[in-house]
Amino acid sequence: MEVAAPLGDRDAANDEAVRCLVAGEPVLQDVRPAIDVVPGMAANLILAAGPLLPFDDYFGPQRAAILHAAVHEGLAATPREAEEGFRSGDLHVGSTSDHACVGSSTGVHSASTPMLVVRNRLDGSTAYCGLYESRSRRLLSFGVYDESIRRRLHELSEVYGPTLSRALAVRGGVELMPLMARALRMGDELHSRNVAATSLLTRELTLPLFDLEDRDAARATLAYLQDTEAFFLRVSMAAAKSIGDAAHGVAGSSVVTGMSMSCREFAIRVSGLGDRWFRSATPPPVGRFFDGYSASDVMWTGGESVMAETVGLGALAQACALGLQEYQGGSAASMIAANLAMYDITVGEHDHFRIPVLGFRGSPVGIDIFRVVRTGQTPGLDIGYAGDGTGLIGAGMARAPSEPFRAAVELYEQRCARGTVT
Amino acid sequence: MEVAAPLGDRDAANDEAVRCLVAGEPVLQDVRPAIDVVPGMAANLILAAGPLLPFDDYFGPQRAAILHAAVHEGLAATPREAEEGFRSGDLHVGSTSDHACVGSSTGVHSASTPMLVVRNRLDGSTAYCGLYESRSRRLLSFGVYDESIRRRLHELSEVYGPTLSRALAVRGGVELMPLMARALRMGDELHSRNVAATSLLTRELTLPLFDLEDRDAARATLAYLQDTEAFFLRVSMAAAKSIGDAAHGVAGSSVVTGMSMSCREFAIRVSGLGDRWFRSATPPPVGRFFDGYSASDVMWTGGESVMAETVGLGALAQACALGLQEYQGGSAASMIAANLAMYDITVGEHDHFRIPVLGFRGSPVGIDIFRVVRTGQTPGLDIGYAGDGTGLIGAGMARAPSEPFRAAVELYEQRCARGTVT
Repeated sequence: MEVAAPLGDRDAANDEAVRCLVAGEPVLQDVRPAIDVVPGMAANLILAAGPLLPFDDYFGPQRAAILHAAVHEGLAATPREAEEGFRSGDLHVGSTSDHACVGSSTGVHSASTPMLVVRNRLDGSTAYCGLYESRSRRLLSFGVYDESIRRRLHELSEVYGPTLSRALAVRGGVELMPLMARALRMGDELHSRNVAATSLLTRELTLPLFDLEDRDAARATLAYLQDTEAFFLRVSMAAAKSIGDAAHGVAGSSVVTGMSMSCREFAIRVSGLGDRWFRSATPPPVGRFFDGYSASDVMWTGGESVMAETVGLGALAQACALGLQEYQGGSAASMIAANLAMYDITVGEHDHFRIPVLGFRGSPVGIDIFRVVRTGQTPGLDIGYAGDGTGLIGAGMARAPSEPFRAAVELYEQRCARGTVT
Repeated sequence: MEVAAPLGDRDAANDEAVRCLVAGEPVLQDVRPAIDVVPGMAANLILAAGPLLPFDDYFGPQRAAILHAAVHEGLAATPREAEEGFRSGDLHVGSTSDHACVGSSTGVHSASTPMLVVRNRLDGSTAYCGLYESRSRRLLSFGVYDESIRRRLHELSEVYGPTLSRALAVRGGVELMPLMARALRMGDELHSRNVAATSLLTRELTLPLFDLEDRDAARATLAYLQDTEAFFLRVSMAAAKSIGDAAHGVAGSSVVTGMSMSCREFAIRVSGLGDRWFRSATPPPVGRFFDGYSASDVMWTGGESVMAETVGLGALAQACALGLQEYQGGSAASMIAANLAMYDITVGEHDHFRIPVLGFRGSPVGIDIFRVVRTGQTPGLDIGYAGDGTGLIGAGMARAPSEPFRAAVELYEQRCARGTVT
């Protein structure tokens, strides 16, 4: 039995994990139906955000989204019938992260969902995320479903998805790292705010769309991109997932490579600790609520958009996006202070994601479980909140719970003691 | 003979001038050849930035631009022949501002120049500015002319201008105030940095261009808009000119409604002091120079893009554009400090132009000649610098000279003493 790994080894492992996080070269390659590209996808499978729960543990908007997705996919005539299907085993729920996917909000994906395909050139890691639905606050992603949402989902799978696929084929894929770095200089933090990145990506796709033969589909797709200012959120998430995956599995590294939320749990994954998710209850909502709503209406917190924070975006770059101050902390100064505090829990600074108000300092990247536990400070999470059947009702910066970080440190130390970490 | 106007009257007059500056509603209506729309335009007239100088006083890049423009327009075979034409009186130089125009850099406009037409709905003031040429640092605007520039100028007048005109006719004009206000939240200050505004305006024009019958011209125009990230500078200038004009002529107001530069002079116009320009020498260049150049290579400082500062943009909103810190002051903190100092010389705060890092405080607007003289602080000017025949060689924040402000205060006080101001 060996002694605990010397700190120097952990530092070197963490440097390597950070190198992978920073050197990622995600490329938006295609938009394809989930059934065609997602590993292990099946016709009777509905993917949902967060580590897998027993079916009856899904509640509120996430349960509603799972059932509506089954109905939308034609697997059941009604949510009630879908419920019976999941209970009988005819239908299944899967966890997005078990299928190389990353799920926004409830994170529901079904066989026909048009998926953004982002491949990280660094190591070939490929991640998938469904297209952002629309500018409405009422989305299937938030557990809402009605006739207009049904129609929009069909437009996504039958028109916008295939048309974007053709435009991306003409264009030859879009390199995302330079585009994301630029968007940070234009007021985005690429989690709660993506309007600049959406605009930059639309610019890359406009001439390819202009040149397509099917003019009606191309025009409709351009209009969809222009109208859907949060479009890039899903691109950013897939990019972050492909980057986080590339940094996962560095022996001895205590750097977080994944964060995720279901309706019940917040969870993290650590580079050197295998595929285990360290779980706790979801954090309490903090932020600002739209007129008529308050924190007590929140039935849904999170999803897997917190992959952004995992790679140095969102709350870890929020001083780029001072336009969000009414939602995140109340003032420019509080946003800057919150962002600065994140350097205390990370082991690197980003070469490409840079923060103008901090003199272009690289964003803090590589959340270290030991630093989180030692400082008692957990990552900020720039997230949205949903009500029950109401869709998006607010947004803000929540704080990750500390339990998963403590549990991860405990396992890391046990393994060190057994000599199995380094 | 009356006594000097009580201060309260000047305050009220300034409030009215600021109201006009803030309540402007500039609309981009059309792009048309100068000869068709510019008041007093003539085939043998070349407009240039700044109050009119005797022909032989124009030197360096501005003289070169005037001569090249005459050649480009077919008024002379060579610059030498053009020179003779101006001396003989066959050709004329005019001042942009005498023709409702605003000129970027050397500010050269000729009969065929495609002009942005911006109308201020507040009072109908209409201002004109030529299209931005290209992303190159070598532009006729900077006094450079060669075969590739000649070809580009023909593309502008024969393809992009007419096509933008058709797209704007389909679109019904574009309201600029909301678009400009939004661009300030996306890292522009709408003088040295316009990339977000260009992107937002391109978005407004993409579907109208998509729908035009002449597909080749529409595609080429979209490509031009996408490639020319500074496109919006000229739109911003025309908007600022239409706003400044609307605020001009308020009896008793000591607010600046125009700033302008020729190759020799910096000049200001004051709302309550008629059409007189108060002049001085141009300010020394301060900023950062591209590789291989230094301040000693500067042969051209300015132009009339400083209309931006006149209406609360540029240096008066530079804390919006911290991405420019390497050019303007060296750090985010120095940019914020420089911006804050501008509140000392202005009499209002903007309702629509707001600065995220200052908690969305309205930008300082309404430069008051008395405050400038009292504080000894003059407006910052976010300008570009050109060399002789080399085009753009750097950019930075210069400081307006104080003499014109002192001369204006002197005249104001004389008129007060005579009772002719209020």
